[in-house]
Amino acid sequence: LFQLEPEADALMNFQHYSSQLPPFYESSLQVLQVEVLQQLTDLIRSHPSWSVTHVAVELGVRECFHHSRIISYANSTENEEGCTPLHLACRKGDGETLVELVQYCHVQMDVTDNNGETAFHYAVQGDNPQVLQLLGKNASGGLNQVNNQGLTPLHLACQMGKQEMVRVLLLCNARCNILGPSGYPIHAAMKFSHKGCAEMIISMDCNQIHSKDPRYGASPLHWAKTAEMARMLLKRGCDVNSTSSAGNTALHVAVMRNRFECVMVLLTYGANADARGEHGNTPLHLAMSKDNIEMVKALIVFGAEVDTQNDFGETPAFIASKISKLVTRKALLALLGTVGADPLIPGMPVEQGSASALQPPISPERAQPLPINLSNLELQDIRYISRARKPAFILSSLRDEKRSHDHLLCLDGGGVKGLVIIQLLIAIEKASGIATKDLFDWVAGTSTGGILALAILHSKSMAYMRGVYFRMKDEVFRGSRPYESGPLEEFLKREFGEHTKMTDIKKPKVMLTGTLSDRQPAELHLFRNYDAPECVREPRFSQNANLKPPTHPTEQLVWRAARSSGAAPTYFRPNGRFLDGGLLANNPTLDAMTEIHEYNQDLIRKGQGHKVKKLSVIVSLGTGKSPQVPVTCVDVFRPSNPWELAKTVFGAKELGKMVVDCCTDPDGRAVDRARAWCEMVGIQYFRLNPQLGTDIMLDEVSDAVLVNALWETEVYVYEHREQFQRLIQLLLEP
Amino acid sequence: LFQLEPEADALMNFQHYSSQLPPFYESSLQVLQVEVLQQLTDLIRSHPSWSVTHVAVELGVRECFHHSRIISYANSTENEEGCTPLHLACRKGDGETLVELVQYCHVQMDVTDNNGETAFHYAVQGDNPQVLQLLGKNASGGLNQVNNQGLTPLHLACQMGKQEMVRVLLLCNARCNILGPSGYPIHAAMKFSHKGCAEMIISMDCNQIHSKDPRYGASPLHWAKTAEMARMLLKRGCDVNSTSSAGNTALHVAVMRNRFECVMVLLTYGANADARGEHGNTPLHLAMSKDNIEMVKALIVFGAEVDTQNDFGETPAFIASKISKLVTRKALLALLGTVGADPLIPGMPVEQGSASALQPPISPERAQPLPINLSNLELQDIRYISRARKPAFILSSLRDEKRSHDHLLCLDGGGVKGLVIIQLLIAIEKASGIATKDLFDWVAGTSTGGILALAILHSKSMAYMRGVYFRMKDEVFRGSRPYESGPLEEFLKREFGEHTKMTDIKKPKVMLTGTLSDRQPAELHLFRNYDAPECVREPRFSQNANLKPPTHPTEQLVWRAARSSGAAPTYFRPNGRFLDGGLLANNPTLDAMTEIHEYNQDLIRKGQGHKVKKLSVIVSLGTGKSPQVPVTCVDVFRPSNPWELAKTVFGAKELGKMVVDCCTDPDGRAVDRARAWCEMVGIQYFRLNPQLGTDIMLDEVSDAVLVNALWETEVYVYEHREQFQRLIQLLLEP
Repeated sequence: LFQLEPEADALMNFQHYSSQLPPFYESSLQVLQVEVLQQLTDLIRSHPSWSVTHVAVELGVRECFHHSRIISYANSTENEEGCTPLHLACRKGDGETLVELVQYCHVQMDVTDNNGETAFHYAVQGDNPQVLQLLGKNASGGLNQVNNQGLTPLHLACQMGKQEMVRVLLLCNARCNILGPSGYPIHAAMKFSHKGCAEMIISMDCNQIHSKDPRYGASPLHWAKTAEMARMLLKRGCDVNSTSSAGNTALHVAVMRNRFECVMVLLTYGANADARGEHGNTPLHLAMSKDNIEMVKALIVFGAEVDTQNDFGETPAFIASKISKLVTRKALLALLGTVGADPLIPGMPVEQGSASALQPPISPERAQPLPINLSNLELQDIRYISRARKPAFILSSLRDEKRSHDHLLCLDGGGVKGLVIIQLLIAIEKASGIATKDLFDWVAGTSTGGILALAILHSKSMAYMRGVYFRMKDEVFRGSRPYESGPLEEFLKREFGEHTKMTDIKKPKVMLTGTLSDRQPAELHLFRNYDAPECVREPRFSQNANLKPPTHPTEQLVWRAARSSGAAPTYFRPNGRFLDGGLLANNPTLDAMTEIHEYNQDLIRKGQGHKVKKLSVIVSLGTGKSPQVPVTCVDVFRPSNPWELAKTVFGAKELGKMVVDCCTDPDGRAVDRARAWCEMVGIQYFRLNPQLGTDIMLDEVSDAVLVNALWETEVYVYEHREQFQRLIQLLLEP
Repeated sequence: LFQLEPEADALMNFQHYSSQLPPFYESSLQVLQVEVLQQLTDLIRSHPSWSVTHVAVELGVRECFHHSRIISYANSTENEEGCTPLHLACRKGDGETLVELVQYCHVQMDVTDNNGETAFHYAVQGDNPQVLQLLGKNASGGLNQVNNQGLTPLHLACQMGKQEMVRVLLLCNARCNILGPSGYPIHAAMKFSHKGCAEMIISMDCNQIHSKDPRYGASPLHWAKTAEMARMLLKRGCDVNSTSSAGNTALHVAVMRNRFECVMVLLTYGANADARGEHGNTPLHLAMSKDNIEMVKALIVFGAEVDTQNDFGETPAFIASKISKLVTRKALLALLGTVGADPLIPGMPVEQGSASALQPPISPERAQPLPINLSNLELQDIRYISRARKPAFILSSLRDEKRSHDHLLCLDGGGVKGLVIIQLLIAIEKASGIATKDLFDWVAGTSTGGILALAILHSKSMAYMRGVYFRMKDEVFRGSRPYESGPLEEFLKREFGEHTKMTDIKKPKVMLTGTLSDRQPAELHLFRNYDAPECVREPRFSQNANLKPPTHPTEQLVWRAARSSGAAPTYFRPNGRFLDGGLLANNPTLDAMTEIHEYNQDLIRKGQGHKVKKLSVIVSLGTGKSPQVPVTCVDVFRPSNPWELAKTVFGAKELGKMVVDCCTDPDGRAVDRARAWCEMVGIQYFRLNPQLGTDIMLDEVSDAVLVNALWETEVYVYEHREQFQRLIQLLLEP
């Protein structure tokens, strides 16, 4: 079987073997086969401290468990690890051996090894959940026992990511509230980012999602290291803003740990970007000291205030001014400057124009560098921004009843770029202190703008919609174009209800544009939550082809209207006969004005002229302007050779893109026409559409890219603050 | 050489040969070869009446012309045709033989054959113009001699279409004014439709184009049987309206002969569709009696009056009512009914409502059927149409100075369908009695509408432009798309001048739309004949890419502006950085309104508010609506197999078409928006666009299809006569 060089070694081995081998050949009915003998001798040689029983278990020779010598060593712990044969059987996952040991050898179930581990610990380390199950049936002593590292078998399973072991342990009533070195088992699962284990614990005991570890008072969400883990908890309803003993939220932790994706998930699930944590620091304070510009942008975009003071009276801007690395400091301060933040410590008496001469107070902990003065910022700017950014909601739903004039809100199409509209609306709501729903009498929207118009109608907050958009994009824009429309439709049904009709809510009046493409030329259709004005002029076509009339508003499902308006060709398949409204009215302003005029004319014709209110303000919000780029050549020419032909195909594609761009351009002439129209009839017209630094697609899914677009929107709001202020004044006029 | 059956025949032949052969072998230096001998004997046998000289000429054996026997028969006419050997040489085109005959045989040049034909006649029938040239050098006697059919050699050449013979005859000073059976040679060339011959005569003697044949007093144009022949004469400047002795124009003749293509050429070159010819009949009278509905439509469309009386007091409508074939009669009367014509004889006392009770008077020639009453027509309709169709031009260029309000005319794009706009403008001009140029203060146009706007600016009559469009389409839309832009550019230069600038003519103010496609998104550019209003609002893009500023109006070439506005992608290549204005404003109304508003605002800003005139009337003319057709499916989906993939490609193409249609639809929302805008600011808005029965392409070249579109336009004008009347009243208001 094997050879050894030194005679002494051979002799020792012989003695060892002669003591260990007998039970095996004695209990065997046949002569031992060479293979088994080989394994046996190998085992004995590699584990010299093991008893025969250990060897028998490892070898899995069941016949010998009736042998007295084997039985006698059944509870032996005299080996290096201090483990019993039972431990080995558990680790090996050998259920049959386990049964033999329990039935014939009457082994003790609660023996712990040198490391304080029970058979349960060993079973968890093995691969066979059935063994764990068997163990659970026969013993309970070791189930919740901690090993020398303070880990219960459940902790161990969570650390190791063994989801099935977790399930079995929980079925055996393993306790979830035993404290390990990193908290309860749920926290261990979170710490090691084992999603399945955490899910298993929560599914078995839903309270675990809120359980705080006694050491830090941190919820599982605080322990989440990845976006996926955080999303899992949030989808299951954990409290996004729960605080640790120190007063920090999960957002604080994620910011401190520089976990950008985690931060995004938390923000999109409604984490308070402005929560004050330990030492009164907001996440923005922490992001500043981390020099993380991306994070700073994301936090500000999601509503973090730039002038909140911590317990030391420092604002985030002030923290930025203290950063030792000059380049980072300058970058951060310049960034803040674009939205009007001030690096000075607020509360100090500040004389206008002499800010640079001021000395900051000495902070208790450390010496502070001189605050840097942003010379391009003036005090009133900061005051404006501060006020604009402070939410002061006054939901006065009666306001609109008293108004003598109507206000119209128009929302462009643009897919996920609808986030820009949301950000603009949040700015307007904050500055006015009134919900969008109550600021406007008419809301028109195309595609993504249509969905937002419905969100306004259904009193969904824009901050909520911002989170929804960030969350939904990954689900909706999955795979390749055209995308499956299932997730989009599910989302719409979830938000607006599967059976909700357009006319279920009547104020404000809402219209969504859609393109009726069952005819040529295609026609605009408006999905309304009110009766369409009757038309007295001659129909466009004398002998109409047999076309189905559109659904009446009282029968029109809200989610279907949203889906129809947003059926952007090549992105989604058409919804029945409807294509995206953007083909005919990507900027719906002109058509909304036309509709309102016809509605009023209809009222007058019906003798209800007293109900007519003149439009006084139109606010048209865009989804961000792409930068203008020069085009070298848009040409379709006669190909004279294959190379030319290739260029033609390219030219045709370029041309196609250009035609689509012309067709759907929401700025340019659409705005010029609307402005001239409004000026001629004395309507105040506001077109708000931030210039973006890059061309963002309708189906962009990168958080960073979208955060940047929103950042540019914030900068735009700041730069156009006078225009916003004028708009707010007009909107608030009785 | 050959064998004969009967001995008597052989004997006769022998005698004949023996008398004819000697000169040949006597004058030959060698023994005659078998081949020559064979030809010789064949000739003698097939032309038994010929002399040896005739045979020698035909054989072309020059050696024998010195033989006395040959010389003696040099002027022999003793054969069936009565032709001399010279005649034969001429017909054979054998110049060398001709020289031999003249030099050695001293033949008479002016001998005529039995048919009265000279050597010149024979030469014309041959293939060698040099022979004719030689003849012309040596003789002149027979040059202008008529044969028994009354034809000079020149007549003969023209009849036979021998262009080169014509040239040589004319170089020999053959006379063009000798009367043949069908007039002068030019008329013969026309009668037999030999374009080259007619061109040759005209190029040698340009007066021939006007020469009338003494018999009918008809010009060559009267004789033209094909469109090509007529076009050739008209391009060379013949008088399209010249009359024959009977008083008929070429149009009368072409109509009588049912030559539709000829009729179209004559009409497009300005033939008077309403000329009174023999018996006072207009071409329309004649077309009626020919039952040719196509022709009737073409004539009416080109301005023929339906109520002109001939010398017997009959109107064309009355003629139609007399047609014996019921189906045709009904069809013609129904046709006339659609444009409001009356089959009753005008001048008769007609009581309203009792028209059907009237008996028509008996015509002198034949018994007449009862006139059919078109019950759906009322007298005032007819009066309206009559008045509307009677041109009563009052060119009062001072009118616009006195007006207190401005009028705007907007012309859509649509390629050759611009004819519809022309027809609408003609109707407005006829009804108002004022040229378009003086009816409007602003004219906006896209593509074809832009070209027409410039035509209006440059005082070109719409009837002229109608002819130009019909004539140009074949030149411009030649080959395959994209078409060569050369012919279009040549045409524009010819019409507007190669160096004419936009600002050369200042009234009315004209704007043409173009799409600046050197940037993305593309922008609208207006080509103006006035200074662009200065813009005070913020530019669309903050940091503009380095883009060339547009040309200033004073530097802008008119033809280039027209070309740029009309660079319809895939039809023509782009003109530099410009694409067709139709991409952004196929119906330019909204943009014209925007422009005028900005222009007025600019005036006010510059302290010239007193110059601002309010818009009171907008007339928007379309190029005809295509019928609405149902579309089964516009879908772009995920292909799962090759067949699906094929459908996707198809879907993408369908989609592309739909996007282009949405982008360029001049009706639909463009009209709804403009109407609402106008109603809101109190501008009278007129949208005139006939519904066409078929979808007509931008590059349609069929005369019949286009005539039909214009016919539908006429019907539209009649059906909307009240609207037109109201429009005219408004336009004529001071």
